[in-house]
Amino acid sequence: MPKYAIEHSEIPTVAIAGTDATFPVRRIYCVGRNYAEHAVEMGSDPDRDPPFFFMKPNNTVIPDGANFPYPPKSKNVHFEMELVVAIGKGGADIPQSRANDHIYGYACGLDMTRRDLQLAMREKGRPWEVGKAFDASAPCAEIQPASDIGHPSAGAIWLKVNGETKQSADISDLIWNVPETIEYLSGLFELQPGDLIYTGTPAGVGPIVKGDLMEGHIDGVGHITIKVI
Amino acid sequence: MPKYAIEHSEIPTVAIAGTDATFPVRRIYCVGRNYAEHAVEMGSDPDRDPPFFFMKPNNTVIPDGANFPYPPKSKNVHFEMELVVAIGKGGADIPQSRANDHIYGYACGLDMTRRDLQLAMREKGRPWEVGKAFDASAPCAEIQPASDIGHPSAGAIWLKVNGETKQSADISDLIWNVPETIEYLSGLFELQPGDLIYTGTPAGVGPIVKGDLMEGHIDGVGHITIKVI
Repeated sequence: MPKYAIEHSEIPTVAIAGTDATFPVRRIYCVGRNYAEHAVEMGSDPDRDPPFFFMKPNNTVIPDGANFPYPPKSKNVHFEMELVVAIGKGGADIPQSRANDHIYGYACGLDMTRRDLQLAMREKGRPWEVGKAFDASAPCAEIQPASDIGHPSAGAIWLKVNGETKQSADISDLIWNVPETIEYLSGLFELQPGDLIYTGTPAGVGPIVKGDLMEGHIDGVGHITIKVI
Repeated sequence: MPKYAIEHSEIPTVAIAGTDATFPVRRIYCVGRNYAEHAVEMGSDPDRDPPFFFMKPNNTVIPDGANFPYPPKSKNVHFEMELVVAIGKGGADIPQSRANDHIYGYACGLDMTRRDLQLAMREKGRPWEVGKAFDASAPCAEIQPASDIGHPSAGAIWLKVNGETKQSADISDLIWNVPETIEYLSGLFELQPGDLIYTGTPAGVGPIVKGDLMEGHIDGVGHITIKVI
């Protein structure tokens, strides 16, 4: 056993449907502005500006049913419902045609965002981590193995807050679909087993407040329910 | 023992001077533009624009003496020599007056940067991870426990490439000194044991090419030597 000089972190994990084994999270990549209508609502022109990548620390995952603690230093925390891809096999420069071979499964996730801090950084050309990479900012429901559900390329994605629909789209609307995302991402970073990719959020993002109940769904993938405390 | 469905990562570690135990790395925070002359060389006005934070994944650390593989998708990879602070005790909203209680030790580190990708993102107000968060981008030499060396607030910091001095300053030139950095950072993110803070680089950053030898030094903290391959 390794001998650590200080208290160490356990490897963060996500539950897997149908098994007691867990998925050890290595890194979390996220795609920004990967649905055209969301790009527009964020002030971007999707015909001119392609999507892009950012990251969260691996220990920002929280499970389905968990409470999301409203984070400090923000008065405008937003939900962003997303399809999450779980990488089971690593690789660099993975072509789209082979991307599915690297996918362990799929999950429903939320890319929680301190929007005020993110926009303040964006305006100054500064890094986004203060807006994106805070504790509990990556809720992720149980992973559905691709061996069970295949590789979904279409299906409704929606998010309700307190029962009211806020986001509603189809994952076939992704600007970079999942194989394209894996090709581009693996050209920039060598992917490894345990990497999660949050593939971007549809239009309709907005603020939550303490006490809100967020419920997300993707056809063929599952659900996620998170309460804001 | 946890049961993982896929190959899992070990917790990344950094060596500690004088012991076989290691420091388990939880997260890596970095400060941007924390020396005035470097802020100016990056096109910023340090009197108007304060420093800021970004992150790297914990598995980007490589040890003193390791080879740094020139990363893909860049033709302008830069060295940035930095004082690294290792957090031994977590906390939120840590006041400057108590910051030292949370520090396990100090090390010499490099914030390796795909400058072309970083600047392309900065120009568009996009996240910096493609420029900052790639594999092996956070070389970190062995940690000197504060119990051995105290809490250095002044001392020469320099970096040579192939024996030629490229960066030369004093850590007393930090705009946010270490206790201030910990106060600001712990207001935005609850610090945890195992967090590393790369405190920013002095002026003189520049490109490296394959075969270059980078040698960094901080008085009272140590050395780091990394070869580019």
